[in-house]
Amino acid sequence: MAIKVTVWNEGRHDKTNDAVKALYPNGMHNFIKDFLSTDENLIVRTATLDGPDLLTDELLNDTDVLLWWGHMAHHLVPDELVEKIRIRVMVDKMGFIPLHSAHKSKPFQAIVGSTGDLVWSDNRMEIVWNLLPSHPIAEGIPEYFHLEKEEVYGEPFMIPQPDELVFTSWFDDGHIFRSGLCYYRGMGKVFYFQPGHETNPIFHNEYVQKIIRNAIYWAAPANTPVPRPTCPRVYSIVEELKK
Amino acid sequence: MAIKVTVWNEGRHDKTNDAVKALYPNGMHNFIKDFLSTDENLIVRTATLDGPDLLTDELLNDTDVLLWWGHMAHHLVPDELVEKIRIRVMVDKMGFIPLHSAHKSKPFQAIVGSTGDLVWSDNRMEIVWNLLPSHPIAEGIPEYFHLEKEEVYGEPFMIPQPDELVFTSWFDDGHIFRSGLCYYRGMGKVFYFQPGHETNPIFHNEYVQKIIRNAIYWAAPANTPVPRPTCPRVYSIVEELKK
Amino acid sequence: MAIKVTVWNEGRHDKTNDAVKALYPNGMHNFIKDFLSTDENLIVRTATLDGPDLLTDELLNDTDVLLWWGHMAHHLVPDELVEKIRIRVMVDKMGFIPLHSAHKSKPFQAIVGSTGDLVWSDNRMEIVWNLLPSHPIAEGIPEYFHLEKEEVYGEPFMIPQPDELVFTSWFDDGHIFRSGLCYYRGMGKVFYFQPGHETNPIFHNEYVQKIIRNAIYWAAPANTPVPRPTCPRVYSIVEELKK
Amino acid sequence: MAIKVTVWNEGRHDKTNDAVKALYPNGMHNFIKDFLSTDENLIVRTATLDGPDLLTDELLNDTDVLLWWGHMAHHLVPDELVEKIRIRVMVDKMGFIPLHSAHKSKPFQAIVGSTGDLVWSDNRMEIVWNLLPSHPIAEGIPEYFHLEKEEVYGEPFMIPQPDELVFTSWFDDGHIFRSGLCYYRGMGKVFYFQPGHETNPIFHNEYVQKIIRNAIYWAAPANTPVPRPTCPRVYSIVEELKK
Repeated sequence: MAIKVTVWNEGRHDKTNDAVKALYPNGMHNFIKDFLSTDENLIVRTATLDGPDLLTDELLNDTDVLLWWGHMAHHLVPDELVEKIRIRVMVDKMGFIPLHSAHKSKPFQAIVGSTGDLVWSDNRMEIVWNLLPSHPIAEGIPEYFHLEKEEVYGEPFMIPQPDELVFTSWFDDGHIFRSGLCYYRGMGKVFYFQPGHETNPIFHNEYVQKIIRNAIYWAAPANTPVPRPTCPRVYSIVEELKK
Repeated sequence: MAIKVTVWNEGRHDKTNDAVKALYPNGMHNFIKDFLSTDENLIVRTATLDGPDLLTDELLNDTDVLLWWGHMAHHLVPDELVEKIRIRVMVDKMGFIPLHSAHKSKPFQAIVGSTGDLVWSDNRMEIVWNLLPSHPIAEGIPEYFHLEKEEVYGEPFMIPQPDELVFTSWFDDGHIFRSGLCYYRGMGKVFYFQPGHETNPIFHNEYVQKIIRNAIYWAAPANTPVPRPTCPRVYSIVEELKK
Repeated sequence: MAIKVTVWNEGRHDKTNDAVKALYPNGMHNFIKDFLSTDENLIVRTATLDGPDLLTDELLNDTDVLLWWGHMAHHLVPDELVEKIRIRVMVDKMGFIPLHSAHKSKPFQAIVGSTGDLVWSDNRMEIVWNLLPSHPIAEGIPEYFHLEKEEVYGEPFMIPQPDELVFTSWFDDGHIFRSGLCYYRGMGKVFYFQPGHETNPIFHNEYVQKIIRNAIYWAAPANTPVPRPTCPRVYSIVEELKK
Repeated sequence: MAIKVTVWNEGRHDKTNDAVKALYPNGMHNFIKDFLSTDENLIVRTATLDGPDLLTDELLNDTDVLLWWGHMAHHLVPDELVEKIRIRVMVDKMGFIPLHSAHKSKPFQAIVGSTGDLVWSDNRMEIVWNLLPSHPIAEGIPEYFHLEKEEVYGEPFMIPQPDELVFTSWFDDGHIFRSGLCYYRGMGKVFYFQPGHETNPIFHNEYVQKIIRNAIYWAAPANTPVPRPTCPRVYSIVEELKK
C-alpha cells in the first residue's frame, strides 16, 4: 500500500540564498520530492512555511510520514500546528522525520523531549558511520560513507538516548555527533538524520537519499488494531473474560 | 551536600475531598515533605497551584529536585512555568519526579516526550514488581510489595521506552503498568512513579517512601564541569589541541 | 525473497508425554512448521535433539531464522553447536527466536548475555499485553489477548533490558513477566517469546502464531553490504579518501 | 562501606615488552591498584594469568568489582573461571569493568552477549567525548578530553546497544568508537572502557583514572534484599497476600 509522504520545508533559504538556489532550484522540498517519487509506492506532497502549499489540517491528516526541514524560522511555526503534529504522531501513528537543523524545531523538541541543543561549526568533511547494519534504516548502507563538506554538528547533543542509534558521524575538526536516531513516541515513530545543510549538495548524495527512503518505510504508520489512545476509563479484564 | 527538594502539589483535592483530608491533613505535599525531612541531607520546601507558597522563579532556581503531583487542574499550570521547568531540567540539571496522575501534566508531557495516555479504572489491589534490583532507585526494595487498594493504571501507556525500567505493576483486574521509569533528559534526570492516588494512603507506605527518597538521590543534579548548553558556535578541536 | 526458517525442538516431551502428543501429534516442531508453511514466503525445515533430522552444519548455514524450543535437555546440546549458532547470529546475521523454556538454553544465555533466571509456577490464566503497538512484531495484535492456561513465568527475569519491549504478561496469581523481547546482537537479531508450555495448546493460538510469524520477518537477515565481522586491522579513512 | 576491587591483568606484555615496562614497572595491574588506593574507601587486590597472585575462588568470591585487562592470551583463561565470573556478576551482583582489549576476552563475550568484534589500527590521536554528562560515571569529566596517542578501535563494534552510552571517541584517521558503555546484566553491572593500550601511558591520564574510579562506584554490588536468583518454583502471590 502506498505511503503518503509530506515534505515540509521552511523554504526561506531556498528563495534568498544563491548557493541554495543553485543546488535546489525548486527548493529543497521539491528536490526531495523528486528523488522520493522515483519510488512508485510513495505519494509525495510538499508544503512550506510561506506557501503557496501549506500544511493544512487536510494535508496533515492525509500524511503518513512527515519530513521536516527548518532553520531560521522555527519560531514562526504556530504553536497550534506543532500541537497538531505532535498528536498526529503520538496518537494517530504518523511517522516524523526531522532533518538537520530541525533539531531546534518546535515539533522535534515537543515530540522527542529535548531542547535539541548541540554545538556547531563551519563546513568540514564528514564521515557517517553505520553502527547498526542489521537495522532496516541501514539497509543497503556500507560501513561508512563520507560527505565532502557538511556543517559540523557536535556533542554533547542534548537528546534522549535513542531507541536505536543507527549512525554516528565523524568530522575532521575533532567533533562527533549521533547522526541517525530512532525513537518510538506513542503510536508513532521518529527518525532524526543530521546531514542536510542547505548550501551543501547533501540531498544529492545517494546514501542520504537511500537512508531517507528507508526511514520512510520504517516510520510509516503501523498496521495495528490497537485503537487511538483516548485515556479511557476501562473495566476489569478478568470479569470480561469470565463471560 | 544537601539536596534541595521542592514538592509541588496541585493541592485542590486536599482542600475539598474528605477522604484526602483524613489521609493528608496538611495536604499531600506537606505529608511528603515530612517523611522526606527525616533525612537530614534533604532540604524540603513545598508549593501549590493556588498558594500561598507558589513555585516562584526564585524557588524553582533554588530547586535541585522537583516532585510533581497534579490531577484535575493540569490545564491551569501556566505554559510559561512549564517552559521554565523544562529548561531547568534539560539545561540546568534539575531532577524531576512526576508522581501518579502527573502523567497527564504539562511538564511531564513536554520533558518526557509523551501524551501520557494510558487506560485507568477503579481501585484494585496492586503488586509492584522490582525488575532491576541492581538499580539505585530499587535500593532496599524487595522483589515485590503490594498496595491493598490503588487506582488502576493500565497499558498501553504511551510513553517512550524508559532508559531504565525499574518497576512494573500488576492489578487484580488483569491490567499491568510500567510503574517506575527512569529517563535521561538533556542535563537532567526524570523518574516517574505511578502509585499515589489521593484517596488511598499510598504515601504512607514504607516502600513508596523509600523509592521516592532513592529517586531524589538518583535524580539530583550531576557534579559535572560540562557547561550549561547554549547551542554555541565552536571551533576546531584539532586546531586547539595543536597549540 | 523467501526466508528459510528452521524450527529446532528438543523433542523429548513430544515423544513421552501424552498431553503433548495429543496437542502436537507430530511434535511441536512440525506443528509450528505447518502453520508457518501457510505463508508461501517461508521455507520451513525442522530439526530435533535426537533426530532423525539434526541441526547439521549444512542446515544451520542454510538457515535465515532459527526457532528454538528446549526444556529438559538443555545440557545435552553440545557446546560446539552452541558456538556455531552464536557465530551464525552475531557474525552471519541469522535471526534467533528462542521460545518459552528456551530462556534456560545455552544459545539464549550465550547470545543474549543472561543466565535466563526467573521464577515459575503452575498453569494460570495469562493475559499478554501489547506495549508497543507501532512495532512490526506487534502487527495485527490487539491491546491484549489471553491464554486460558499457561505455565507462570515471573519476575525478576534476569535478562538485559531489551532493545524493544514489545509484550508483558499478567498471570492471575499475581506474577508478571516481560514476555516479548527484541535484542540486536552483532549482525543478527533475537526475539524471545514466553508463551509455549508443552502441555498447553499455546501454538494453536492465532495471536501466538501471528507473533511468531511477525518475528521471523523482523529477525530475518538484513540486506546489508557491511562485510562479515573479522576484527580486521584497517587503515586511515582520511588517507583513503584523499586518493 | 569499603568496596573490594580486584584488578586482573593478563600480565604478559608487562613482562616482555620494554615500552610497557617503562610505563608500568610493576605491571599495569599494580599501577591501577596504586592510583585506586589513594581512595581509602577502596580495598584493591591484584591477580594475573600466570601469578603468583591468581584469581582463586576465594579472591573472586571476596571481590565486589572486577577490573579485567587481557590481550594476547584470552584463550588461556580457563572456561571454568569464565563461568564463575559470569555467575558472580549475574547472580552475585559483582561489578565487572573490562578495559580496552578485554572486548575480546571470554568473560566480556559471555556476560555482555557479544563477539567483541571491531576494527583496529595503529596509534592515532584520540578525543573522548562525554555524551551523558548527567551520568555518575561522567562525574567530574569535561565535554571532552584527548589522548595524544592511542590504538585506534573503530566501528562497527559488534556490541549490544548499551543501557547507557556514556562516551564515544574520535580518532584522527577517521574512525569513531563507542568507548564508554554501561550494561545491566542480571544482578550485576558492567562498564566497558576502551582506552588502555599497553604501550601508551593511558592509565596515567587523570580523566581515565577518574572514570575508572567513578565506574567502580557505579558498578559496586547493589544494596538489595532481593535474593540470589535460583530459578525457583513459587506459589500464588494473591493467595499469600490473603493470609
